[in-house]
Amino acid sequence: MSIIHNLNPERMEEYLHRLFLYAGLNEREATSSAHHLVYANLRGVDTHGLQRVPIYIERIKKGGIKKNVTPSIERETPVSALVNGHGGIGPYVGDWALEIAIEKAKTTGIGAVGVYHSNHNGMMAYYTEKAVKQDLIAFVTTTGEAVMAPYGGKKKHLSVSPISYGFPADEEQPFLLDMATGVVARGKIIMALKNNESIPLGWAIDKEGKDTTDPAKALDDGLILPLGGPKGSGLAFMADIFSNILTGANWGPHIHSLYHTPDTPQGNGQFFMIMRPDLFMDTEQFKKRMDQAIREVRSVEKAEGFEHIYIPGEMEAQTQNVRRKNGIPVRKELMEELQQAGQSVGLEENLFSPYYQAGGD
Amino acid sequence: MSIIHNLNPERMEEYLHRLFLYAGLNEREATSSAHHLVYANLRGVDTHGLQRVPIYIERIKKGGIKKNVTPSIERETPVSALVNGHGGIGPYVGDWALEIAIEKAKTTGIGAVGVYHSNHNGMMAYYTEKAVKQDLIAFVTTTGEAVMAPYGGKKKHLSVSPISYGFPADEEQPFLLDMATGVVARGKIIMALKNNESIPLGWAIDKEGKDTTDPAKALDDGLILPLGGPKGSGLAFMADIFSNILTGANWGPHIHSLYHTPDTPQGNGQFFMIMRPDLFMDTEQFKKRMDQAIREVRSVEKAEGFEHIYIPGEMEAQTQNVRRKNGIPVRKELMEELQQAGQSVGLEENLFSPYYQAGGD
Repeated sequence: MSIIHNLNPERMEEYLHRLFLYAGLNEREATSSAHHLVYANLRGVDTHGLQRVPIYIERIKKGGIKKNVTPSIERETPVSALVNGHGGIGPYVGDWALEIAIEKAKTTGIGAVGVYHSNHNGMMAYYTEKAVKQDLIAFVTTTGEAVMAPYGGKKKHLSVSPISYGFPADEEQPFLLDMATGVVARGKIIMALKNNESIPLGWAIDKEGKDTTDPAKALDDGLILPLGGPKGSGLAFMADIFSNILTGANWGPHIHSLYHTPDTPQGNGQFFMIMRPDLFMDTEQFKKRMDQAIREVRSVEKAEGFEHIYIPGEMEAQTQNVRRKNGIPVRKELMEELQQAGQSVGLEENLFSPYYQAGGD
Repeated sequence: MSIIHNLNPERMEEYLHRLFLYAGLNEREATSSAHHLVYANLRGVDTHGLQRVPIYIERIKKGGIKKNVTPSIERETPVSALVNGHGGIGPYVGDWALEIAIEKAKTTGIGAVGVYHSNHNGMMAYYTEKAVKQDLIAFVTTTGEAVMAPYGGKKKHLSVSPISYGFPADEEQPFLLDMATGVVARGKIIMALKNNESIPLGWAIDKEGKDTTDPAKALDDGLILPLGGPKGSGLAFMADIFSNILTGANWGPHIHSLYHTPDTPQGNGQFFMIMRPDLFMDTEQFKKRMDQAIREVRSVEKAEGFEHIYIPGEMEAQTQNVRRKNGIPVRKELMEELQQAGQSVGLEENLFSPYYQAGGD
């Protein structure tokens, strides 16, 4: 087992902010990206947090992530916008597009925004939660590189295409669903590999088409299986259409790899649909109905082995409370990688110093 | 095995039309409903076709489906409408609401329409396909009565909540995904029961929480399992929120049963999001990109046991071609039920006469 350190989230966010500035991003790009990545760890979504920093830095250095980008609107109506991300860093391009979708939703009731020419843009619930905190309903999707075959196939062709839905509640935690349309997110297999763990049967097949529990074989030209066969395959294609085919982005197998081609923007897209609840009923009434529905779900008699029924996003909110206090657990090896990423752009800091430890000073 | 007759679809639609008129529906209600139900059979979705006619007739007679209803708009913006279905027959209320969503999408780019106080409204791909035939993008969802526990629970609380997405293509068949968020649609278990067939392990558990292959045990206070555990559970809740919580409809366990309470409107809702592709790119260009993406998916190297990769909706389109020509296969018992439903409202016709057989005259 690897040694785990518990890192102070605010100080890690400041470190990442400096790291991205040293790498050549501007203030807005560095702020969005640092906040997004640490927030993913706070929510327990370690697959989309600090783990991605080293490749982000490598891509910035090699040109796969363009520096100092200003996204632009290429087509617009009162309810929609098409955004060119100009190959910028995904979390910033995503934030920029989300703001437009939110503004349009506040004005007309609905804002649909598509993005093209972007890069890996983090966890989708980051965006849905931002909208939900403003009492809006949100659907957000994107895709990464192809890692999954369509149902009936045996070559990589579709991303595991995350889809996220968010709805505000009143006193309860909001509903924040964020799911890969594969049996599992690719990031979980990458994490298993880094942690020297095996993966459960049913997650992936190797390049010969055989079941595997070895994350290396799953990643080495193996395939993640679609959720429920044709259903997950159909949902992944749906996400590909909204994010990429409709927006003019690269789609399916044409999206450049995050890891293998660090000199080339991935060219993937993203799609946001933001909506005001009061198109249908007063927002306060809707939020109270959400509270009631959430409480009813939670009070359903439990199946054997379960003590609590979680609403989508609830477990992440609990993790956030714990990690805000106790820090973000990070493997020593990843901390060394983060430090090396800093050194590679001239930022010399010791992440192992007490300053970065939770409870340190 | 039951005797199967192949019925002429046009003549069965005319029969249903007369049947609904005899039962007291008006011309518009009878037309929408007859067309919808036969179309479901043509597409091979037998769970949502003629099989539902006897209970529809019983509900019309007992008051669970209100006759001669005119839906009304209760809240409206240029991009949205909230529709009261007044307990009318679902396929008609759904058609009525869809038309409004389509008109709004044509005018402003997006039309979001919610429905409440409705009834069982057929198969969702019926609506998405109508929008797609007008070169529009569609998301449609609804819920029926609770048949599934949320992940971690063991009591009926959520519907299997179908979700449907449609996108137009150019020369290819459109993308028409229509999926239950349970492992399987409840209608498939009802059909297995009627056909005296067992169901696969993994579809359902009985009321003791044990795996079962007996459709009767699955239906008798048993539970359909959510697709992929927490993911299907989250998607089902999402559909419940859009269709019901947001629209003012009955939700989750509060939806009245289609079969058990034939004197009470179910009170469920429905949700439509219709969008013009040219918000993002010229529609013709989008459709050509869809063609290319569909052809690429289809050309992926096949896994063992597969000769063809189907795009969502493609198999249904093939079935439609076959059944348009060869007729709709219907069990003798269901034909007798349909005939009895007619007799119960004073319509005396012999469905076993050559007139109703495919190829008959």
